[in-house]
Amino acid sequence: MNFKMIGRIFAPILAVEAAFMLPALLICLVDGDLHAAYSFVCTIAIIAVTAAGLWAWCRKAPKGFRAREGLICVGSSWVLVSLFGCLPFVLSGQIPNFIDALFEIVSGFTTTGASIVPQVENLSRGILYWRSFSHWLGGMGILVFILAIVPVSRRSGGFTLHLLRAESPGPNVVKLVPHMKKTAAILYLLYILLTLINFLFLLFGKMPWFDALCTTFGTAGTGGFGIKSDSMAGYSPYIQNVCTVFMMLFGVNFSCYYLLLIRQFRSVLKDEELRLYLMILLGSTLLITWNICDYYTNLGEAFRQAAFQVSSIMTTTGFATTDFNQWPNFSKSILLCLMFAGACSGSTGGGIKCGRIVLLLKSLRRSIQKLLHPQAVHVVRMNRQVIDENILESTNVYLAAYVLIVISSFILISIDGFSLTTNFSAVLSCFNNIGPGLELVGPASNYASYSAFSKFVLIVDMLAGRLEIYPILVLFFGAARGRIE
Amino acid sequence: MNFKMIGRIFAPILAVEAAFMLPALLICLVDGDLHAAYSFVCTIAIIAVTAAGLWAWCRKAPKGFRAREGLICVGSSWVLVSLFGCLPFVLSGQIPNFIDALFEIVSGFTTTGASIVPQVENLSRGILYWRSFSHWLGGMGILVFILAIVPVSRRSGGFTLHLLRAESPGPNVVKLVPHMKKTAAILYLLYILLTLINFLFLLFGKMPWFDALCTTFGTAGTGGFGIKSDSMAGYSPYIQNVCTVFMMLFGVNFSCYYLLLIRQFRSVLKDEELRLYLMILLGSTLLITWNICDYYTNLGEAFRQAAFQVSSIMTTTGFATTDFNQWPNFSKSILLCLMFAGACSGSTGGGIKCGRIVLLLKSLRRSIQKLLHPQAVHVVRMNRQVIDENILESTNVYLAAYVLIVISSFILISIDGFSLTTNFSAVLSCFNNIGPGLELVGPASNYASYSAFSKFVLIVDMLAGRLEIYPILVLFFGAARGRIE
Repeated sequence: MNFKMIGRIFAPILAVEAAFMLPALLICLVDGDLHAAYSFVCTIAIIAVTAAGLWAWCRKAPKGFRAREGLICVGSSWVLVSLFGCLPFVLSGQIPNFIDALFEIVSGFTTTGASIVPQVENLSRGILYWRSFSHWLGGMGILVFILAIVPVSRRSGGFTLHLLRAESPGPNVVKLVPHMKKTAAILYLLYILLTLINFLFLLFGKMPWFDALCTTFGTAGTGGFGIKSDSMAGYSPYIQNVCTVFMMLFGVNFSCYYLLLIRQFRSVLKDEELRLYLMILLGSTLLITWNICDYYTNLGEAFRQAAFQVSSIMTTTGFATTDFNQWPNFSKSILLCLMFAGACSGSTGGGIKCGRIVLLLKSLRRSIQKLLHPQAVHVVRMNRQVIDENILESTNVYLAAYVLIVISSFILISIDGFSLTTNFSAVLSCFNNIGPGLELVGPASNYASYSAFSKFVLIVDMLAGRLEIYPILVLFFGAARGRIE
Repeated sequence: MNFKMIGRIFAPILAVEAAFMLPALLICLVDGDLHAAYSFVCTIAIIAVTAAGLWAWCRKAPKGFRAREGLICVGSSWVLVSLFGCLPFVLSGQIPNFIDALFEIVSGFTTTGASIVPQVENLSRGILYWRSFSHWLGGMGILVFILAIVPVSRRSGGFTLHLLRAESPGPNVVKLVPHMKKTAAILYLLYILLTLINFLFLLFGKMPWFDALCTTFGTAGTGGFGIKSDSMAGYSPYIQNVCTVFMMLFGVNFSCYYLLLIRQFRSVLKDEELRLYLMILLGSTLLITWNICDYYTNLGEAFRQAAFQVSSIMTTTGFATTDFNQWPNFSKSILLCLMFAGACSGSTGGGIKCGRIVLLLKSLRRSIQKLLHPQAVHVVRMNRQVIDENILESTNVYLAAYVLIVISSFILISIDGFSLTTNFSAVLSCFNNIGPGLELVGPASNYASYSAFSKFVLIVDMLAGRLEIYPILVLFFGAARGRIE
């Protein structure tokens, strides 16, 4: 195990995290919130010392790194960034309990948006900024960012691919261009561009700039931390509709946008994942509109509410404009199932991902064809390309790991004694990085009532969900069983 | 598609079904219940005419049958047997609604034990006998029975293997002896032997012979239809304990008993599926005992209740000695998860099966090893034998189909508007052939409140669960899309 190599990656990651805390510090100073400003200064100092120490110790790392280092590196760097990232919450005394603060920042970085803060209005603006910004940073990935800005030697091309593969959502990473570094840079540029457009649209709707900024971060990262207790319910229909559209846009595979830029419209139109994604969005919205139309004044309003909640849950953002806990059970069931599905691979959203669902359905069809025609040769194609058997296998195994983690987490947090729907939706919501669940953890409520142990389980779920299981499994079980060495 | 060949298989199946109705008819006559006796006579007559017609039409079937005929044959014969099997319920007027009667008999044949009868004491003894006997017949499989008694020509060896494979539970069929016909006969002999021992043990506990007979059928088929509204709660602790033990025994792979008979003790002891099965049984029982000990007078009683309910749910039998709806949420969560697991492959139980869980866990471990050591060659072994990649793939795809069916059924029956826990546990319970669920479909309640549409969905789930998905998928979707021809 090449620990020095991993340490060398950690140093710039921590430096970037500290740098990203500066705007939050500035906001604190402008607001005259010296206590919070002090907490940011302390945190930045702690991070700087740690990063410098790591850099000094690991500068001369031996060469050679393998897939396992990539996995360990991704898993542990997310843990590290979260441990340091929650310090401002604790030091400022605004979330004094450490496990609560860790829950909040992990929920931020993993773009979950599940909160333990009962009255979010009590947090100061600097803290709110940092909380929402964690969504934006976690959405596209911290390592992808490092990859995009830090010079990488040609030798480490394999390593960067491993990192990107472990951090990017979806069954396989599409290299937009031959160089991984350029791919990462293009992804981030597209991300920044879309974020800017979203921000401008919100400002146009006369949203205060701070609200618009935090909401944009939450939308872009498909995170869902609001800065009001009623999430998005208090804003104008225009602002809510802008959110609906942008949540949907940030749930699309970013390579589609790249294809649009290089004018390959046909490939985008025929993308099977995108089609399934839009079909599920539209179908669920129509079904729920039909189901809830008696709850609202007219059909248009019901459609608007349904569309917002459907795209919020399916893209795993987790904003809410209404307490869908009050909706009829059929609508709640659809929302619960949307929690499984998730957005597209290569987007900032979580969940199983539509691309995996396409592959799972095609594997199933092939299995039936194999039964009917045992002699014939069957291959699985997606977007007209033959899918490698290894990807198919890992997609299928992914589902097994997914079900296993959902079931074991469900059992573990049920010790707290809350209702089955609460626990099940809490696990699904955290593991798929959505945010709100049903009943006790519904949109009008929060996760504060869970015990510290359950919060820890949910923290692991959030990380496992964001990093697509394997890095976290390797970190927890691989390491414990000495299989990494 | 060789329809005549399939018709030729149907004839003896129907004849056997009619023959098995004779004891029920006898009980009706002895009890002087002429109305029910008349319904059995009518049904037997209808079946006899249909079988004779089929036989005359299909006697000279063209040769040649393939895997697809096996799948279609199994799927459609179960539908056929159920359609005729529910006639006594309807004709006797004891379950006058056809969809209710069909639900009840499908629940019987698939060894589910979910009932729509509010007061089971109102049914006459002949009808109760037929209802419980359907469990016994469905447990080991009707086609396996035909296979064991009807002479099969050597040419059709492949066909019989297809039939057995489609009807037997578990990822792969173990041929106990080279000839499939002998394997089927050995399985049925072991089944009859264990059933007899169970019956004698119950008689020894001074259970009335009719109660003992019906309970034995329910236990042997891991079905769970009781002949009292309170299921097994009214019987003595001795009788309940006998049930606990025999439910566990009927959840074991029958090839283990064969191995015991030919004195291969070591293979049985090292059987990985059996070990997992016993571990889960013991672990869940202990956890629930700890959780419910305040609800009962002493620890022994809590253990007894926990053991009964755990083995009832895990073996997918569905008897109950207590209303576990009243238990704390942690225990209910464990029971809900046990619904997924199911018994061993090659037993009469349903569910995903422990054997599949072993394979899924090993696939997952291999996936992680592949990530850590991409160059190495990895094979999956079970009981020291290398598992074929096709079996691994179909096990993984099976899980995908399983999740897909659970989610779509959950959405479909949620139109009725019952609570999420009710619906989710109803789908799990029917699909895994267990019987009782939670809340509205809990052990103290029944499925009568669902709409006819939901009942139909649950009927399909029960059949898909018993036949392990593929035959029913082929029957419904393969046929609809003209892919069978």
